[in-house]
Amino acid sequence: MSLFQGIRYFLLADDNKGKILKKVLGFYPSNISLYEQAFRHKSIANEFNEESLESNERLEFLGDAVLGSIISEYFFVKFPFKDEGFLTKIRSKIVNRNFLNQLSIEIGLDTFLETSADTKRSQSIFGDAFEALIGAIYLDKGYESAKKFVIDKVIKDYIDIEKVQNLETNFKSKLIEWSQQTKKAYSFKTDFIENGQSNYFSCRLYIEDIEVSNGTGQSKKKAEQAASQEFFEKNIMQEHS
Amino acid sequence: MSLFQGIRYFLLADDNKGKILKKVLGFYPSNISLYEQAFRHKSIANEFNEESLESNERLEFLGDAVLGSIISEYFFVKFPFKDEGFLTKIRSKIVNRNFLNQLSIEIGLDTFLETSADTKRSQSIFGDAFEALIGAIYLDKGYESAKKFVIDKVIKDYIDIEKVQNLETNFKSKLIEWSQQTKKAYSFKTDFIENGQSNYFSCRLYIEDIEVSNGTGQSKKKAEQAASQEFFEKNIMQEHS
Repeated sequence: MSLFQGIRYFLLADDNKGKILKKVLGFYPSNISLYEQAFRHKSIANEFNEESLESNERLEFLGDAVLGSIISEYFFVKFPFKDEGFLTKIRSKIVNRNFLNQLSIEIGLDTFLETSADTKRSQSIFGDAFEALIGAIYLDKGYESAKKFVIDKVIKDYIDIEKVQNLETNFKSKLIEWSQQTKKAYSFKTDFIENGQSNYFSCRLYIEDIEVSNGTGQSKKKAEQAASQEFFEKNIMQEHS
Repeated sequence: MSLFQGIRYFLLADDNKGKILKKVLGFYPSNISLYEQAFRHKSIANEFNEESLESNERLEFLGDAVLGSIISEYFFVKFPFKDEGFLTKIRSKIVNRNFLNQLSIEIGLDTFLETSADTKRSQSIFGDAFEALIGAIYLDKGYESAKKFVIDKVIKDYIDIEKVQNLETNFKSKLIEWSQQTKKAYSFKTDFIENGQSNYFSCRLYIEDIEVSNGTGQSKKKAEQAASQEFFEKNIMQEHS
C-alpha cells in the first residue's frame, strides 16, 4: 500500500482529515487548512477565486525551495567525499518535474489532489502538489519536520539512490536510441559562434529535417547534449499529455 | 562600517577568530572549522589538496539551497497576496550570481575570503563565499540560525526590497539602451519553429552583424527577451573579468 493509501482526501469528513494526515505524515497537523490548500489544484481553486491565491501554487513555490534545501543536505551528508559537481548532478535527478511527478504518483499523492474534472493527469500537477505539501509541512511544523518527512517517509521507502545515480543523463545517446527505435532520422547542425567576446557553440537538432530544438555550450558536445535534452524535455511532456 | 568590518580573517590568531565571528554572526560558533572552510576559495585549497574538498565549494552547494529556501519564505511571508509568478521573479533578483556577488562585497565578506594571490576579484567568488557561509551556519547551528542571520543581519541592513522590485528585468529595453550608449547596432532574427510537436520561437541576436546569443520562447517577445538576457549575462561576466 502506498504512503497516501489511495484515499480521496477531499471527500473525507472534516473529523477524519486530521487522523488520515497523522497516519500519512507521522504527526498530527496543527493547521489543517495548509494541507487542504496543498491538495487544491488551481483548476478547482479558480472556480471560487479568480486570483487563485487559494490554490497550491504559492505553497509549491515555497515547498520547491525547502525541498531543494532538504535534498541538498541529504546528499551533502550521504556523499562526504564527492565534489559539488557530483552533488549538483544527483540533486537535479530528483528535484526535477518528471521525477517528482512520478514519485508523487508512486506514493499515492495523486489521490489526495483535488482538481477539476477536465484536468489532465499530465505534466507536473502531482509533483507540484508534492512540493506544495512540503511547503505546508514547513509552515505548519518547521524545517526539521519537513526534513524528517522527506527523508523517513519518502526517500527511505520510495527512492533507490543507486538507481537515481544511474539515471540516464546522456541525452545524446538517449536520442540515438530513440532514433533507432522510432526509425526517425536525426541530425545536428552545430556552428561555432565567434563574436570576439564570448565564443560558444550553437547547435540545432533536426528530426526528419524539421528543427525541433536547439542548445548552446562551451563545446560542440555540450551544445549537442543541451539540444538533445531540450528535445526530450519537450517531447516527454508531449507524450504524457 | 560594513558587517564584516574589512578584517583579514585568515590572518587573525586562532583565539580571536571565534570572537570576531561572534561579532559578525551574532552568535558564538561551535565549529569554527566550518567557517574556515567557507572562507577558503578553491584557488588556495588546491595548493594543499588536489581534490579541493577542503575548499568552500561543497558548502556553497549546500548554502545556495538553504539560502534559496530562506529567501523564498521571506518573500512568501512578506507578500501574502502575490502569486507565485511574482514571488519567483523577485526571488530570482536576489538569488543570482551578480546580486549576491555585489552584496557580499557590500557587507565586506570579500575581506574574509582567502584566495591565491592571482585570483581575480571577478565573477562570483564572493557571492559563492556568501552561500558557503550560509551553508556553514546551517551545519553549525541549524536552519533557524541561518534564517536569522540572513534576515536580521543581511536583508534588514543591506537590501532595499523596493529597489530590488524595480531592478531591470526587461532585457530587451536594456539592450536598446545599451545599443544607443555604445552606438553598436543590434538586430534580431526570429524564426517560428513548427515541428508538429512543440512549436516555439527561436531568436538570434546580432551585434554589428555578429551573432552574440540566442534564445527560445513561446512567443516572439519571450524569445527576444531570452536572447537579450543571455547576451547581458555573458557580457557582464566578461566586463568584470
